[in-house]
Amino acid sequence: MIGGLGKMNRMLLAGVCAVALLATGVTAAKAGDDSEDLDLKVKWKGAPEFSSKDGAFKFKVRGRIMVDYTSADQDFAITGEPDINATELRRGRLGAEGVVYHDVKYKFEYDFAGDGEVTDAYLEYTGLPVSIILGQYKTPNSLEELTSSRFITFMERAAITDAFDLERQLGAGLSYKKEQWTAAAGIFGTNIDDEAPDEGTTFAARVTAAPILTDRKVVHLGASYRGRDNGDPEDLGLYEYRQRGADFHLTDRFVDTGEIGESDDLFGLEGAVVLGSFSVQGEYMQLTSEVPADIDFTTHSPTYDGWYVSASWFITGEMRNYDEGEFDRVKVNRPVFEGGPGAWQIAGRYDTIDLSEGGCEECGEQNTWLIGLNWHLNDYTRLMLNVNQSHIEGGVNDGADITGVGMRAQVDW
Amino acid sequence: MIGGLGKMNRMLLAGVCAVALLATGVTAAKAGDDSEDLDLKVKWKGAPEFSSKDGAFKFKVRGRIMVDYTSADQDFAITGEPDINATELRRGRLGAEGVVYHDVKYKFEYDFAGDGEVTDAYLEYTGLPVSIILGQYKTPNSLEELTSSRFITFMERAAITDAFDLERQLGAGLSYKKEQWTAAAGIFGTNIDDEAPDEGTTFAARVTAAPILTDRKVVHLGASYRGRDNGDPEDLGLYEYRQRGADFHLTDRFVDTGEIGESDDLFGLEGAVVLGSFSVQGEYMQLTSEVPADIDFTTHSPTYDGWYVSASWFITGEMRNYDEGEFDRVKVNRPVFEGGPGAWQIAGRYDTIDLSEGGCEECGEQNTWLIGLNWHLNDYTRLMLNVNQSHIEGGVNDGADITGVGMRAQVDW
Amino acid sequence: MIGGLGKMNRMLLAGVCAVALLATGVTAAKAGDDSEDLDLKVKWKGAPEFSSKDGAFKFKVRGRIMVDYTSADQDFAITGEPDINATELRRGRLGAEGVVYHDVKYKFEYDFAGDGEVTDAYLEYTGLPVSIILGQYKTPNSLEELTSSRFITFMERAAITDAFDLERQLGAGLSYKKEQWTAAAGIFGTNIDDEAPDEGTTFAARVTAAPILTDRKVVHLGASYRGRDNGDPEDLGLYEYRQRGADFHLTDRFVDTGEIGESDDLFGLEGAVVLGSFSVQGEYMQLTSEVPADIDFTTHSPTYDGWYVSASWFITGEMRNYDEGEFDRVKVNRPVFEGGPGAWQIAGRYDTIDLSEGGCEECGEQNTWLIGLNWHLNDYTRLMLNVNQSHIEGGVNDGADITGVGMRAQVDW
Repeated sequence: MIGGLGKMNRMLLAGVCAVALLATGVTAAKAGDDSEDLDLKVKWKGAPEFSSKDGAFKFKVRGRIMVDYTSADQDFAITGEPDINATELRRGRLGAEGVVYHDVKYKFEYDFAGDGEVTDAYLEYTGLPVSIILGQYKTPNSLEELTSSRFITFMERAAITDAFDLERQLGAGLSYKKEQWTAAAGIFGTNIDDEAPDEGTTFAARVTAAPILTDRKVVHLGASYRGRDNGDPEDLGLYEYRQRGADFHLTDRFVDTGEIGESDDLFGLEGAVVLGSFSVQGEYMQLTSEVPADIDFTTHSPTYDGWYVSASWFITGEMRNYDEGEFDRVKVNRPVFEGGPGAWQIAGRYDTIDLSEGGCEECGEQNTWLIGLNWHLNDYTRLMLNVNQSHIEGGVNDGADITGVGMRAQVDW
Repeated sequence: MIGGLGKMNRMLLAGVCAVALLATGVTAAKAGDDSEDLDLKVKWKGAPEFSSKDGAFKFKVRGRIMVDYTSADQDFAITGEPDINATELRRGRLGAEGVVYHDVKYKFEYDFAGDGEVTDAYLEYTGLPVSIILGQYKTPNSLEELTSSRFITFMERAAITDAFDLERQLGAGLSYKKEQWTAAAGIFGTNIDDEAPDEGTTFAARVTAAPILTDRKVVHLGASYRGRDNGDPEDLGLYEYRQRGADFHLTDRFVDTGEIGESDDLFGLEGAVVLGSFSVQGEYMQLTSEVPADIDFTTHSPTYDGWYVSASWFITGEMRNYDEGEFDRVKVNRPVFEGGPGAWQIAGRYDTIDLSEGGCEECGEQNTWLIGLNWHLNDYTRLMLNVNQSHIEGGVNDGADITGVGMRAQVDW
Repeated sequence: MIGGLGKMNRMLLAGVCAVALLATGVTAAKAGDDSEDLDLKVKWKGAPEFSSKDGAFKFKVRGRIMVDYTSADQDFAITGEPDINATELRRGRLGAEGVVYHDVKYKFEYDFAGDGEVTDAYLEYTGLPVSIILGQYKTPNSLEELTSSRFITFMERAAITDAFDLERQLGAGLSYKKEQWTAAAGIFGTNIDDEAPDEGTTFAARVTAAPILTDRKVVHLGASYRGRDNGDPEDLGLYEYRQRGADFHLTDRFVDTGEIGESDDLFGLEGAVVLGSFSVQGEYMQLTSEVPADIDFTTHSPTYDGWYVSASWFITGEMRNYDEGEFDRVKVNRPVFEGGPGAWQIAGRYDTIDLSEGGCEECGEQNTWLIGLNWHLNDYTRLMLNVNQSHIEGGVNDGADITGVGMRAQVDW
């Protein structure tokens, strides 16, 4: 077919072009090598998440800033507590997370706000269908508690999470997560900050299901349990149940059982529905505490409970982002840049905690209304405005109303 | 023109070379794709500043180490305070800064030295001509205070900055910066470390101009104001004005008004001239404090003032680097590597603070001479040597001379 | 040779192929430029170590998590101390290290465990054959102390290191390291946490040699000295020598001289042999303390000593990794991934500390047996199990046996 071209010519042509190929191949390969040498991938998640090309290693710095201003009237006439007019670094965290060789994840974070505390400090083995977690992390209880402070709808979580002392504890746990259901259980000592020769034991477990889970619709159901035994009560003191006025962080506590519990059992039920930009969420929790005989209490197995219901709507069309039994980062449709409005969310919550059994001085019930407005400038930044009012029933603060306004500027990376 | 080459041959040639082109093109494109995939840019600023290619995201870890040795004679015969002979971690900071989506910057840093404290913790919206800052940062007062501790000429700032309590406070501010002039104002609560139900309010503002600003010449002029009101004085205590002997960090305080102020007004004037490797800088500040009637003071509106003048010269030819109303990092001409000498700077300062009104025990005046020698090994490392002497006039320490030597090794990233 | 191809044809061929070359060359060069623009190299060392292409700058974030569970019987009948049953964050560190311009290295790290402390905080000039170090780092004493807590064989170091107060101190030092021998010396003030007007002076030095050093064989020998003088004893208090029961971190101290020393001299000898996966290590230390006349002690120059011998064997064939006078990270042959077993190490130690001179209440001797099992999942993760027993001789706790089990999960980056 090559006809008029002689053998020599064909060889020459092939040769010259081979050289061309080779030369450019070498050049290209060199360029290729260069970028091959750089064993690096990057995903921007606020800060960059770096990983090696084979995924054996990952690393990301993480952090968050939340700065607040709170103004509140604590009903001085009844409670004797003054007005609040204060700024606060609510959270200022820095930490790191990563993977060291395929199956071993770690996370370490410190909160520099207030007196400072280690938050997450654990390693997780992910090489089995069920993850194994060793270290300090949140006991598996409550949708509200497990949702990161970066992603909760109001400035502070519902009363039950603080009143019943949901927190990170140091222990060993298992976690199984599928898109539509999750199960987790663990056995724990205390939080890192609570040091004692005998720490006692905490056991906690949670199961959740999302029977409906589509792009714009979620139905979430869950139940959890936590049982704590305080070891030698002389070491750690007794458990105390209490909550701050109007669910703010800087107000005082007007319902407070005092230190009474040497062990307790907590049961919780949770549910949430997301319908596009609209969502509803609620939880009920009941705790029974064992009170030692030498404490002056009208019952030695008091039962406390509380619940909340919250609803929110994104005016700008975004939706709360459900991910394996928790709420995750909201993706802003049109961030504030080149005319984007950001995401605007309005929300309301009714929140009640009943600590009235036992007849102590501040044994009472607190009912709180909250209205919230959130402006997400982008996926990592939001401004929050909360207007809250609590009404106290029972105890020495009976009839008190705590009312206030809170503002937050938040960024995370 | 192609004459003797037949159509087939021409087609063949085109075909073969097309294959060559294609093949190499594919290879090259692949290499190109690879580096395109890595959405990453890097600038080395001590530590790397990473950014996404579109600049929507940036991230940099930041930190500094300053280790000091101080030897000082505190004039025991008069003051009763012993000699100083001590090492110190003067600053040990770690933090992060970045951009999350174009217009939102953040900065968070913690100083682990001493008892530890959060330094900067803010987010800044840069999408408007005027920046909006929310969080904790330095109130806009004083060239000396606003210049980073990494770039000040002497180991410690001039007396006025500490005596009049210039510091970071948590608030909201505006900042406008042009090459030749700047304006900033903010409204603040207290520093994060000062917690109180009622924090009062601080207002601060500053304007600066650089009427002359060329490559090797700068004239800087500025004025600032700060007004503080201590809210409920029972919450935070009263303001105290005082300064350490010889402007060292480890000496004791020999001029000290005690806690007296429930509000105060501070005015400041500042100027600086850079002429190549030579520079002069000076400031004057005056503060009037309101003292409650129940404090035993000879006047209830005492006025304090202070000023300093400093001069420095880079023997090796570098210059102080002026940037929008502050001094920034010195660029070393020939760093210490392969025979480079680094940058050598000599400097002197006269520094006075007059806290003598009011007739309190340590109400007095402190005048200080400082001589400094700085050796910048490179842009991020320097060794400092300071020889300082203070003379006290008035109060119980009248006539005391505090004399000492300080040394610092500093690195930042 | 080109015969049958006409000149025009040859020119055409050359031209077309030149275009091909050029085109692909340009493309390739462009790809090359792109990766050239990114002035970045990366090495994965848990977290990525970034560097500029010319090596002038390096940067790496570093950190470690060690979470422990300890259960111990403290022989209540004799010592009066209760059982231990507790979790703990033993170490939770975050820091940074890097190079700023070729010859200046730095390292800064903070340990958030317990009350928190700055660990390393120094800069190092490496442009001379002998390194110059300024800042806080470990005084050059003891193979066991100088080996990172990430790489020691047992959960806690041998008794001599704590009893004789080996720690980081802030100072200036020289270090010379060759593959087969090292020498280091420094002059120090106190640890950053110990603040005092007069810190006194510490001098320390160490030499080591590795006369045999092959791929699978190491013989290490070393000697060190440390002399401390406590400056003004009123400032810092006196030196105290003591050790916790069974070398655990959460047990109480049953041998304890109380605060007695105003100065002391410490001599140490060390040796280690690695024979493939088997290794032996031992040290002897002797300390003489000067006790002030006004302290009720039977001798005012008591001499204390202690020693340990440990042996370990990697069942899975790994070896302890010797590097310039210290032990370094173990390289796991087959990490836990796709069926790898990780590295399994068994170890034993005998450990004794004799603080019996002086006739104080708890002046006594503690002898401890330890058995350890370590499972390295990969180079950066390990689980540890220790079974320890101490026997006390002398003092008020004479005859007491402290026995316990410790477990640790460790990850570093």
